[in-house]
Amino acid sequence: MSTPPVHAPMSQFAVREGELLVNGWPLRRLAERVGRTPFYAYDRGLLGARVAELRAALPAAVKLHYAMKANPMPALVAFMAQRVDGVDVASAGELRVALDAGADPREISFAGPGKGEAELRQAVAAGVLVNVESERELPLLAGTAQSLGLPARVALRVNPDFELKGSGMRMGGGAKPFGIDAERLPAVLRGLQREGLAFEGFHLFAGSQNLKAEAICEAQRLSYALALRLAEHAPSPVRVLNLGGGFGIPYFPGEQRLDLAPIGDNLRQLVERAARELPQAVLVLELGRYLVGEAGVYVARVLERKVSRGQAFLITDGGLHHHLSASGNFGQVLRKNYPVALGTRMGEAAVENASVVGPLCTPLDLLAERMALPAAQAGDLVVVFQSGAYGASASPQGFLSHPGCVEVLV
Amino acid sequence: MSTPPVHAPMSQFAVREGELLVNGWPLRRLAERVGRTPFYAYDRGLLGARVAELRAALPAAVKLHYAMKANPMPALVAFMAQRVDGVDVASAGELRVALDAGADPREISFAGPGKGEAELRQAVAAGVLVNVESERELPLLAGTAQSLGLPARVALRVNPDFELKGSGMRMGGGAKPFGIDAERLPAVLRGLQREGLAFEGFHLFAGSQNLKAEAICEAQRLSYALALRLAEHAPSPVRVLNLGGGFGIPYFPGEQRLDLAPIGDNLRQLVERAARELPQAVLVLELGRYLVGEAGVYVARVLERKVSRGQAFLITDGGLHHHLSASGNFGQVLRKNYPVALGTRMGEAAVENASVVGPLCTPLDLLAERMALPAAQAGDLVVVFQSGAYGASASPQGFLSHPGCVEVLV
Repeated sequence: MSTPPVHAPMSQFAVREGELLVNGWPLRRLAERVGRTPFYAYDRGLLGARVAELRAALPAAVKLHYAMKANPMPALVAFMAQRVDGVDVASAGELRVALDAGADPREISFAGPGKGEAELRQAVAAGVLVNVESERELPLLAGTAQSLGLPARVALRVNPDFELKGSGMRMGGGAKPFGIDAERLPAVLRGLQREGLAFEGFHLFAGSQNLKAEAICEAQRLSYALALRLAEHAPSPVRVLNLGGGFGIPYFPGEQRLDLAPIGDNLRQLVERAARELPQAVLVLELGRYLVGEAGVYVARVLERKVSRGQAFLITDGGLHHHLSASGNFGQVLRKNYPVALGTRMGEAAVENASVVGPLCTPLDLLAERMALPAAQAGDLVVVFQSGAYGASASPQGFLSHPGCVEVLV
Repeated sequence: MSTPPVHAPMSQFAVREGELLVNGWPLRRLAERVGRTPFYAYDRGLLGARVAELRAALPAAVKLHYAMKANPMPALVAFMAQRVDGVDVASAGELRVALDAGADPREISFAGPGKGEAELRQAVAAGVLVNVESERELPLLAGTAQSLGLPARVALRVNPDFELKGSGMRMGGGAKPFGIDAERLPAVLRGLQREGLAFEGFHLFAGSQNLKAEAICEAQRLSYALALRLAEHAPSPVRVLNLGGGFGIPYFPGEQRLDLAPIGDNLRQLVERAARELPQAVLVLELGRYLVGEAGVYVARVLERKVSRGQAFLITDGGLHHHLSASGNFGQVLRKNYPVALGTRMGEAAVENASVVGPLCTPLDLLAERMALPAAQAGDLVVVFQSGAYGASASPQGFLSHPGCVEVLV
């Protein structure tokens, strides 16, 4: 009989006397400090360690950007902005938070389809780099630049002619709303100078949430090669080559953490090639989930252990209104459990397969289905791991008019 | 060759000179009145007509409740509260809106697993009926009643021993976090008098979003029969028998509107039986989506028609952050298109299969996939029909920090 797949160990968090620690804080005390449940907690130690781990594995010449769509909590963005080389924003709202957080506008880039005229104007006024998603943006940016008397810094987002294989989300290849089709770019690049825009380089983003190092390496090589071909048509040398991200984290049983070593080797080769072939270019990686996802937990309190027809349910004060992804309703076809534990009974043996649910009147409100857990009591704290990215901000907090959740940086 | 299934006609909305009308307002003028896009618009005329249609089809003795979880917009709740016989709430937040809306506390009921002690106290203080989901609530309610010197009005929510066949969501039958298992209820009912609570009746809710009248009729008959058996154990006569809802609306190609006539016939028989067998009982239907879903549209503006590798994309200012359900990420296993049209080109012939997307940097941000549509231009208004329920409040409005959407009652 084969063993069923299990979750990767959530060993990034320490445990003391059966209690999970978030950056040294025992979970019960942290909950008292927060003053209420549910809440998200993000661990500064883990956030810093992840940046350090990337710095060690990747060549020093590669710039590390934080894609703040993964977690736009202002305190966290400010913490990250001090540790990474730039911040990528996806809306004028994110741009404001990034600037408030002290990110250097020269190292902020703004991507996203359907940018409004007002948003483009804000971006030019702020002096950030606009990742152009569509030819439509070019005359708007040129007009804005003239009107403000400021250069419109642009990189062209390329919809490549390949995909990042095995990604959770495919963002490039085939017909896409993102970027400009690679085959159209030579003509677009030739027209750039006439527009009077400040061309800086290319942005390629083939996919996200990938756990296969080789697939990421291949996409990076293909992205580099495509950018090199396109650079021949550019009005000026490429100064920025954003190779996207795609680094995944393990969410579901059977998934393993990404091996950074081959990605570092691959990037060292690309950095060497770039030094010869694109001598003015800096290579940029744009990571969101990989930087912050594993550093966060969602914490809810067990209100009741209830048994219905032999099945145990832990009814908590948290649920899909705070954590849509863990409920399986955000881009997942077949629902699987996130890693979930009783943060107040770490190390205790599992005694039952309990389903962890929330207070909403819908069967969708499910944080874990038949998860092997120790014997829970009312008052215990349930922890959903891997919750630092696409959690609070990606959830329908107003659904059923329960209180919103708190977020703390610990 | 068989014809592919199509959406049910959205003929509830009138059209004038190629423009959709929302309660008489041409869509472009409505957008100007609102002052921005995207927005949700709910049509008072259609809301009232739906209540009238139900009153005509169902026996007069059946009370009609609005389950405000479907749409908690305060102005809409106030409008509905004047037209239905009661309001069902799912949280203390909804309770506050219902009371503000002028709903009679005697006709408000409060359901939901994991009710907090503070919520139960608010419910008793307000004088509303609590649908008890778990034995745990009973001593809490009894203590609250004593502490406030007020009766705790209770109905017991029953987890039945059957399911509502063919429902979008199954809320009863099998092991469930909702209600008390039917087989446990005789013992619970015998203990009620000792608790000193004011027993009023039963709440059964077998499932939701069902388009088969016969399945709904069967669930209502089974619910009635179960309640009748349980009534023998009750400490006092049943005064309220809430048979739940489950009435669906057509969202996807091939779905047809529910036939109310057989449901009306079935309820007339149950009302006659109840007059003999449960003479003090009022039958209640609890409808959310069915009352408001078809009366609402989500309206977004086309920013750009973009072609990538032969596929047309209409990039709009609206998306999954406002309308998660239409993106296919809310309880759907396989994504299907909601009915979507160009509200500014009604009646024009379809010329292409265009995908309608939003401004978010994710392939999940899809409002319609390859939908047959007329030739769109920037400035056209896209309409997503069947958006009056589980729209704005069930969406992650903070995702990517774009502006939230507006809701208007027209």
